[in-house]
Amino acid sequence: MKVGILGFGTVGSGTYRMLQENREAIERNAGVSIEVVKIGIRDAAKPRDVAAELFTTDLDSIVRDPAVEVILELIGGIDPAEKLVRQALANGKNVVTANKELMAKCGSDLVSIAREKGLDMHYEAAVGGGIPLVQPLKHQLAGNDVLRMMGILNGTTNFILTKMSQEGADFADVLAEAQALGYAEADPTNDVDGFDTMYKISILASIAFGHQVPVDCVYREGIREISAADMHFAEMLGYAIKLLGVCELLPDGQLLVRVHPTLLPKDHPLAAVNGVYNALWLHGDFVGDVMFSGRGAGANPTASAVMGDLIDIGRNLKIKGPGSAIPYSGPKPTAPIDCLESRYYLRVKSQDRPMGLGQLATCFGQSDVSIAAMEMRQLEDGIAEIVFLTHRSQESSVRDAIVQIESMGKGDSVQTCIRVEGDGTL
Amino acid sequence: MKVGILGFGTVGSGTYRMLQENREAIERNAGVSIEVVKIGIRDAAKPRDVAAELFTTDLDSIVRDPAVEVILELIGGIDPAEKLVRQALANGKNVVTANKELMAKCGSDLVSIAREKGLDMHYEAAVGGGIPLVQPLKHQLAGNDVLRMMGILNGTTNFILTKMSQEGADFADVLAEAQALGYAEADPTNDVDGFDTMYKISILASIAFGHQVPVDCVYREGIREISAADMHFAEMLGYAIKLLGVCELLPDGQLLVRVHPTLLPKDHPLAAVNGVYNALWLHGDFVGDVMFSGRGAGANPTASAVMGDLIDIGRNLKIKGPGSAIPYSGPKPTAPIDCLESRYYLRVKSQDRPMGLGQLATCFGQSDVSIAAMEMRQLEDGIAEIVFLTHRSQESSVRDAIVQIESMGKGDSVQTCIRVEGDGTL
Repeated sequence: MKVGILGFGTVGSGTYRMLQENREAIERNAGVSIEVVKIGIRDAAKPRDVAAELFTTDLDSIVRDPAVEVILELIGGIDPAEKLVRQALANGKNVVTANKELMAKCGSDLVSIAREKGLDMHYEAAVGGGIPLVQPLKHQLAGNDVLRMMGILNGTTNFILTKMSQEGADFADVLAEAQALGYAEADPTNDVDGFDTMYKISILASIAFGHQVPVDCVYREGIREISAADMHFAEMLGYAIKLLGVCELLPDGQLLVRVHPTLLPKDHPLAAVNGVYNALWLHGDFVGDVMFSGRGAGANPTASAVMGDLIDIGRNLKIKGPGSAIPYSGPKPTAPIDCLESRYYLRVKSQDRPMGLGQLATCFGQSDVSIAAMEMRQLEDGIAEIVFLTHRSQESSVRDAIVQIESMGKGDSVQTCIRVEGDGTL
Repeated sequence: MKVGILGFGTVGSGTYRMLQENREAIERNAGVSIEVVKIGIRDAAKPRDVAAELFTTDLDSIVRDPAVEVILELIGGIDPAEKLVRQALANGKNVVTANKELMAKCGSDLVSIAREKGLDMHYEAAVGGGIPLVQPLKHQLAGNDVLRMMGILNGTTNFILTKMSQEGADFADVLAEAQALGYAEADPTNDVDGFDTMYKISILASIAFGHQVPVDCVYREGIREISAADMHFAEMLGYAIKLLGVCELLPDGQLLVRVHPTLLPKDHPLAAVNGVYNALWLHGDFVGDVMFSGRGAGANPTASAVMGDLIDIGRNLKIKGPGSAIPYSGPKPTAPIDCLESRYYLRVKSQDRPMGLGQLATCFGQSDVSIAAMEMRQLEDGIAEIVFLTHRSQESSVRDAIVQIESMGKGDSVQTCIRVEGDGTL
């Protein structure tokens, strides 16, 4: 089996190294010998540990090469990855990609093309790094109606939130530390503003529900607003704060797909997933609760997932089977976040005054939001911080309450509003 | 796709019900319509909710029926399941089985026959109920050298140990409660003496290491000896007690496969898997740590796994692909339990006497076993209970120490000896 690799960064070089180090087991499992014939790179001048003649900066030549049977697209991003993958499929090559953005934005189309041409198109590494998620959803769990799925799908933000929780530190300080350790990029937007999680939950939702979920149908909030104060109050109330991708089937048959920081009860299995670990929890109508966890990023875990896909293609080529790309159907109606019914955590900064608490409580009550728990502490002279945990309420009602609180003209403001999950309701 | 079902107990009837309730999703995913043409049962007189003409007590007629393309073997046990599965394969039928004993004892042979005949032979439901384990090991993780695998694979014993830990109750009382609740059989041997876990770890080890691990090469201990006192001391020392199936690659290349109660540090992810839940934790050289958890038994979760296998066969029949049975190689040398190096927990009942503790400590020292922690409490007048937690030691040395302690002639006896895992070494 002749393989061309596009990209030789963390994932590309990790995959190449795994192929060398575990060659015997990989070829035994694939049933074929595997030869990397060409590696496409951008910068030929960079020193590398691999024979120079394997490299080329002409990536087009790899996807055109008639000898190449499988393309590993490990560049990431849309340009030029999308163009190269389309060319590879058009030229009859099987494709493995680790590219979540590409699969979230063009996956439905690419998989359909592969299907029509009888090619394999695999993307296990695009979600959850080394954790098997994509294929188990497509195969072992495929008989279930998935009712709800919640995932910690971004290691950088989970590392930051874990540190904030353990050290009582603020977001900005822990972000700087994560950047120094190489866990966060110089521009952290993709991670901390939830784009990475959005791509991944969009892919998982599309598989689990059999319908493409476009990324612009995913509600998205990042973790920049989470403060040490929120961690403190969450802890007091018995919760952890995690950035989750959540996908659920509403009673009216619409899907609601969303990414936001979430309070999770400490005894929920996802609450114990810390540091750079990722996890997916789901509830299927027959299987019940299932959880998968492991390392969601990094050279080696991602290489492990790429290799699993490559082994499957090897097996398939050997038996001359047709490709196993499984397409999903067209888009399914998705609900806006206003349709959410959930519990909410709100942290309010309030000016001390007679009747202050009563006025706040009245704002909630008039918006049809009922309070389940409250914590209060004095911040400085004349200013208090009050945390409200609500019973199940409509998102739109909570937004209405926030508007009422901030328009009282008493100087009260809602600092954070975080949704609560895992409280026993499906 | 015409399907014959053998057995209509918990799993058989659950599978049939899932096929009715989720028919649309299942057929969409399988790409074919699915018809159950016959269901084989033992007792025709039992009242059932399904049209009587579907049932037959002539199970042979189902595996002979030329119209049947897939056999779901959901009887369990060896006789007559083995004979029927062999006949089904000989007659060119694809097979899905949920039978752990059959796969542990005859799996290598059955899969080879399926392979030769170009048939599918799937057994996801044989291990871990609804949790995807078998196929992820065969596919997504297949590029890894698996270095260690530890699983809570039996829901009955995990339910019992969880109850004992939470309520301070003794084994016999909790077993009686589990029997009353239907979680344990009238004859609990298969569960509490570790046979069920032995079958399952043998299957997983065979897949992960690519070599058949015969069940008689698996060391096995059950949980009957675990007492409320052990739960108490484990808790004090920061551990949970779980019945684990463990499989590891020793430095000399031998496999060591074993089933026994195990002390796990409370912060190990398996320690939090409680009640009837099952989980598999593994460490692969590239993927790192991965864990899967969920419901390991019951009609619905098991049906979910059977259905995933059936959907895969449907896809394969539709594209007229050859079978995807993946055989493993012949037996690999396995090591005896004496080769184990581990930490150990020992609870000793000791007669109070001057020098008593020193004599016990000397027994350990002379056997090359070094003590890491100790707890002691008075039981009744003149009798003390002393718990020793050792540093890493050879199993043979610990056994030697036990012999020395019990042959001092001072009335001391080792009540329990439990291995410790998950202490940070691989």
